[in-house]
Amino acid sequence: MSAISIPPLDRDAAVAARERIDQLTKPVGSLGQIEDLAERLAAIHGGLPPVYERRAILVGAGDHGIVDEGVSAYPGEVTPQMVGAFLGGFAAISAFARVARAEVFVADFGVGQPLPAHDRLIDVNVARRTRNFAREAAMTEVQFHAALDAGIRAFEFLRERVDPQIIGLGEMGIGNTTSAAAMICAFTGAQPEDVVGRGTGIDDDTFKRKLRVVSDASAALEGMEAKKIAAAVGGFEIVGLAGTILAAASARIPILLDGFIVSAAALLAQALSNESIGYCIAAHRSRESGHTVALRHLGLVPLLDLHMRLGEASGAALAMPICEAAARMVREMKTFAEAGVATANEPSHA
Amino acid sequence: MSAISIPPLDRDAAVAARERIDQLTKPVGSLGQIEDLAERLAAIHGGLPPVYERRAILVGAGDHGIVDEGVSAYPGEVTPQMVGAFLGGFAAISAFARVARAEVFVADFGVGQPLPAHDRLIDVNVARRTRNFAREAAMTEVQFHAALDAGIRAFEFLRERVDPQIIGLGEMGIGNTTSAAAMICAFTGAQPEDVVGRGTGIDDDTFKRKLRVVSDASAALEGMEAKKIAAAVGGFEIVGLAGTILAAASARIPILLDGFIVSAAALLAQALSNESIGYCIAAHRSRESGHTVALRHLGLVPLLDLHMRLGEASGAALAMPICEAAARMVREMKTFAEAGVATANEPSHA
Repeated sequence: MSAISIPPLDRDAAVAARERIDQLTKPVGSLGQIEDLAERLAAIHGGLPPVYERRAILVGAGDHGIVDEGVSAYPGEVTPQMVGAFLGGFAAISAFARVARAEVFVADFGVGQPLPAHDRLIDVNVARRTRNFAREAAMTEVQFHAALDAGIRAFEFLRERVDPQIIGLGEMGIGNTTSAAAMICAFTGAQPEDVVGRGTGIDDDTFKRKLRVVSDASAALEGMEAKKIAAAVGGFEIVGLAGTILAAASARIPILLDGFIVSAAALLAQALSNESIGYCIAAHRSRESGHTVALRHLGLVPLLDLHMRLGEASGAALAMPICEAAARMVREMKTFAEAGVATANEPSHA
Repeated sequence: MSAISIPPLDRDAAVAARERIDQLTKPVGSLGQIEDLAERLAAIHGGLPPVYERRAILVGAGDHGIVDEGVSAYPGEVTPQMVGAFLGGFAAISAFARVARAEVFVADFGVGQPLPAHDRLIDVNVARRTRNFAREAAMTEVQFHAALDAGIRAFEFLRERVDPQIIGLGEMGIGNTTSAAAMICAFTGAQPEDVVGRGTGIDDDTFKRKLRVVSDASAALEGMEAKKIAAAVGGFEIVGLAGTILAAASARIPILLDGFIVSAAALLAQALSNESIGYCIAAHRSRESGHTVALRHLGLVPLLDLHMRLGEASGAALAMPICEAAARMVREMKTFAEAGVATANEPSHA
């Protein structure tokens, strides 16, 4: 953490963008959230946003000892298999990234078995998986710092490879909704009943086990500092993605947050450096109900609400064209004066 | 109308698409509305949807005699000026169409003054503007049929020029929220108070005039047949776009409906041929509250809700990449079996 310094958002650039937006050939405010987004992007970049010619998606992957408690519908070996699908180009994020014209990278923060080398696989593995947090801390303090640093290094890898002007963050890790739920409860003070969801689609018995595991863990975390919470119940990919958020914010790159699990990473980043959230954009609202709890605590309003709950950065990819639209609006539209279009009548007149 | 025949949606193709979607490497249902959209697109195309390499946006433009009642914040000459901006490439829809990789065409269904010729301007002008519907019918029955036919010809123009695999429909016409509100009241039976909105951003006095004009007109329309309603209070661009909807549906092309005014065109198309709505996709929910009334009557659930209220097909353009994502999902993702990924555990097992 200590090495990362995050600049404040550029308020002057935001004001200048808003002034221009209000003069463009459209009724004031008529592009709603697109206008707010353009203003935010200007604040992030310190000037008019680029149209995002260079885009990257980073999927953080890791495995979770908590699966030993029987909290997931899928076996742990699915994590490395899905990483293969992401890199092979036939997963949901592969398809959606083509729509977003973004390159997909995977960071191995803590996958349960060694992965075959790949051009777009970033090997920053901290350990083969976290420990079962129902029995002991998920990771040591040393591992926590290693995971955070791994996220920073993953961002450096992206910068060297594609120098992205915008990034989308997602995750893969069987068991990670349980870890994320425990983190969200601890960071927001919300009740487990309001945060624990069905994840990949678990049955009633599995749901009860998951709820109990999260309730027991969060009760023990009350009032602890951020890194203790993350080490107690976090995942390597969740802590890693928090590191990536801090690194991207310090480089003034907008960060599209995917759903539920990435919001846990954002809460950790927020606790470590509140300024980092100014660089984050909530891509969508996940159907996982605890996501709304996290978004409220982060103070973010999502762009999309398509009842998705997949992860993998699928929502982040779908929101990238919307960021491009906001940038093109402020860059490519003319003002009433520039276009020679008549403006609205005076308010007193019909 | 008589010449247009609309084939039923292909239910078998929809079922086959859903079966494939349920086997793709993701939890069943986890892509929410994207899955429903892919199923619908398969029903429209009669097979897996294409990834939409050829895309067109059609903006229908027309002027309205009702502006003489003082119902708009903008003068009527803005309509031709904005058409110039669309074709010149510096309006909101120009910027958003670049994001959607769609070509923008404008159909002059009834603009108040002659427009300079342009490669992407479709001249199907019925008359220089509608009459003031507070005093007399907006158009004659002959003009109504001419406008509907103009919409069909506009679609034929698009087919010859770009042979689009998907189209987005939008509109431009100072005064047309008043016309659309009166049509929506008449087609849905809703109260004017629930349908009349602020349009481009009118003041309280203008709003009161607009509400009175719509209330008076809709009271007189109760129980009338569709073409009488449209002739009484419609606009040339609204009737024209209804013709385009019918033509595109008969060609099995998915139609992305923009916002409030286009929903009035869709209600007319629905009244003329209920099957046509199966080919329509609601791109977004407009901030204009009457749009929700219209969407309910159409039975459509919008993809986006970004508090926009601009028109011009701006929402339709933003939703095009989402249609591409749905198509790529079902075409480019592998099934669990194809990808060699382990499936969910049996329900009885942890």
